[in-house]
Amino acid sequence: MGILVNIHPSMGAPIVDALRRLAPDETVWAHRDEAPADAVEAMLAWSLKPGTLPAYPQLKLLCAPSAGVDKLVSVPDLPPDLPVARTVDPQQHVEIAQYVVGTTLRHTREFALFAEQQRRGEWLRRPVRASAQCRVGLLGLGAVGRFVAGALQAIGYPVAGWSRSPKAIEGVTTHSGDGGLAHLLAHSDILVCALPLTDGTRDLLDRRTLSLLPQGAYLINVGRGEQVVDADLLALLDSGHLAGAALDVLREEPPRPGDPLWNHAKVFGTPHIAAQASPETIARQCLDNLQRVRAGQPVLNRVDLAQGY
Amino acid sequence: MGILVNIHPSMGAPIVDALRRLAPDETVWAHRDEAPADAVEAMLAWSLKPGTLPAYPQLKLLCAPSAGVDKLVSVPDLPPDLPVARTVDPQQHVEIAQYVVGTTLRHTREFALFAEQQRRGEWLRRPVRASAQCRVGLLGLGAVGRFVAGALQAIGYPVAGWSRSPKAIEGVTTHSGDGGLAHLLAHSDILVCALPLTDGTRDLLDRRTLSLLPQGAYLINVGRGEQVVDADLLALLDSGHLAGAALDVLREEPPRPGDPLWNHAKVFGTPHIAAQASPETIARQCLDNLQRVRAGQPVLNRVDLAQGY
Repeated sequence: MGILVNIHPSMGAPIVDALRRLAPDETVWAHRDEAPADAVEAMLAWSLKPGTLPAYPQLKLLCAPSAGVDKLVSVPDLPPDLPVARTVDPQQHVEIAQYVVGTTLRHTREFALFAEQQRRGEWLRRPVRASAQCRVGLLGLGAVGRFVAGALQAIGYPVAGWSRSPKAIEGVTTHSGDGGLAHLLAHSDILVCALPLTDGTRDLLDRRTLSLLPQGAYLINVGRGEQVVDADLLALLDSGHLAGAALDVLREEPPRPGDPLWNHAKVFGTPHIAAQASPETIARQCLDNLQRVRAGQPVLNRVDLAQGY
Repeated sequence: MGILVNIHPSMGAPIVDALRRLAPDETVWAHRDEAPADAVEAMLAWSLKPGTLPAYPQLKLLCAPSAGVDKLVSVPDLPPDLPVARTVDPQQHVEIAQYVVGTTLRHTREFALFAEQQRRGEWLRRPVRASAQCRVGLLGLGAVGRFVAGALQAIGYPVAGWSRSPKAIEGVTTHSGDGGLAHLLAHSDILVCALPLTDGTRDLLDRRTLSLLPQGAYLINVGRGEQVVDADLLALLDSGHLAGAALDVLREEPPRPGDPLWNHAKVFGTPHIAAQASPETIARQCLDNLQRVRAGQPVLNRVDLAQGY
């Protein structure tokens, strides 16, 4: 019996290493081909194709290496009594803040332009864009949003925030509701989407809302691809109303070859890497839950399949 | 009579605009060719060639658009009684922190690699490097260094610092002297040089000191190019001991065509743009000092030519 890491080696290999280091007595398979189907007791996976789970008759635990589980629990042949656990790593809000700060500075401080100048052998100074005049609007004021706000303020960016229901953050002007959203958008030179995916946030960023942003605004999405209407974002990038976007999430991941958003010259696209649980944390929580399943104890961080998260 | 902005238009044009906006009654020339030599009362310049100043018999004030004036006061035919003023903008330590944070994240979060993947149409996730295990060593603990330390800590990077003489910063382990430098270097995965150029810091980063950094370390220089021995840095980049460098400053600016450091594949080179006074601040302080010269009052932020800064 053992654990199958059913994840692409680029992400899976460090998890396999961590499992073997933390539990040298457990059998760990790095590929589906290597694992005897009737010996797989636990599986780690981001997403599943229909037909996968029924092939493993002894499966007692399914672990997501992330907090988000929407691509795992949506598989139609998921047995309703199979325990599914997410990975919870409090370090992830730090990593989201790094991504938002890093892409903000990549844009405002024109790093891509300077790299291109360097490639051309051109040493040409340009004025620094004053951060005090570059207003950041933050959609989503949970634990992540609060941390992002503090990190941006620490390097001189004025931050305002919005959430569906009213929330207060010390030192940050906050807005809520539909009227508050329109106000925030009209005053955001950089818009950061850090919202959870709900019926209220799906398709939130469409032509109507994105058009409220000032001319030349920049979008950073660390929420979910389903919150952006791709065709509307594309139209506003092409018209020049938006200067660009950093997208860590897409409606379809990986994107299809030729996806116009992923291939757009004004888009910096990253493969959903803004935040990840560390391989050690993923391995530790998986091993801990496997012990719990074997001992008949309740699984930690179990997903409520009825709610979907 | 009027003001000559003797600066490349890429930086000079916004300063010209600001001067004209703030003082519509002053004559402002954007190019040397336009300015009648005997009508130039004040000049703004980063650097000067010998022979320039004697051509302007009415010159009463020379203004640097920056805090650093080493390339201006080193011209041999600078009249010893000509008032030379630097521009002082307290916003600049914020901009230095943005540059250091931005280049740190560009390196640790592999933005250049992801941009290259995107260009190739490759959507491939990679594990996030844990910031808690990525130690930043900061050379220079003045006002800039302290601000940089706080900004890096706000996004999860452990920071230690070094200065020639002992200094204390709350929440930062600090070292000093030669022994302290060796210790700091041996424990820095990212080394940030934010030192002023003095006889004690010239050539400080040579083969001996840079070799003390751990294998795979990264250098960020926002100090001065003269603090790095180019050939030694190149050797350590080529040997793989250092993973790369972000260099905002070089010994020779602009670099000569073919400069091996500026053209190195592991170097992200930017044209001395980490921090700049804003065009408004440059214009305001120049206009203020011109009024002072005309009124026989002492010039503010005047450079001590004997000390050179």
